[in-house]
Amino acid sequence: MSWLDEVPWNEHGLIAAIAQDGSSDRILTLAWMNRDALQKTVESGEAVYWSRSRKKLWRKGEESGHVQKVLEVRLDCDADAVLLRVEQAGGIACHTGRESCFFRKLENGRWVTVDPVLKDPALIYRK
Amino acid sequence: MSWLDEVPWNEHGLIAAIAQDGSSDRILTLAWMNRDALQKTVESGEAVYWSRSRKKLWRKGEESGHVQKVLEVRLDCDADAVLLRVEQAGGIACHTGRESCFFRKLENGRWVTVDPVLKDPALIYRK
Repeated sequence: MSWLDEVPWNEHGLIAAIAQDGSSDRILTLAWMNRDALQKTVESGEAVYWSRSRKKLWRKGEESGHVQKVLEVRLDCDADAVLLRVEQAGGIACHTGRESCFFRKLENGRWVTVDPVLKDPALIYRK
Repeated sequence: MSWLDEVPWNEHGLIAAIAQDGSSDRILTLAWMNRDALQKTVESGEAVYWSRSRKKLWRKGEESGHVQKVLEVRLDCDADAVLLRVEQAGGIACHTGRESCFFRKLENGRWVTVDPVLKDPALIYRK
């Protein structure tokens, strides 16, 4: 898999992965991938990340159903990030029930929540 | 500066910073900021990053003239990334003379350059 060898994994074996919505062009998430995650993402066509807190592979949407179907994968010039264009299931990427994880905006020296909750997380994550 | 205190700087005192073009919505760059860089970015209204290779503050465009005027700053839910919406001077963010650093696309197991060089880097960086 030579394309995987061209990725200069950092000292933790990871690369940053930005997910951008293929319809709205919004940035949805920044997460991390190891080699296995990137390979599984490309093979399966759905985003798989490396959870740094849980230290395991994390198929995006495995609990919430909010999978990210991958439309395109790009690599940046110094190869320290990949960019996924995705089709976001449910239109919700964030565990708070919002479209994007970037829902806080700096306004006059304060981080202000500016995006609405589209679905109650209690409904997203109930068993 | 309490808004700066809300940013959970990583073990190196850094946070990932994604720059998105405010007109085209394209992702231009992924770079890193320390506290000083983020403060200077907000105060000056132009993107200032931390160069991990040169270990110093780096005012984007200081050599190339391709400054990034900051339109908006957002923070993500687990606060490990900031998103800048910017007005990209010259329409060129990449040191290769392309609009975006994400100019390589995965196609059939190869990273293929799919975006044109808009200006010869030799012309951008000549003294």
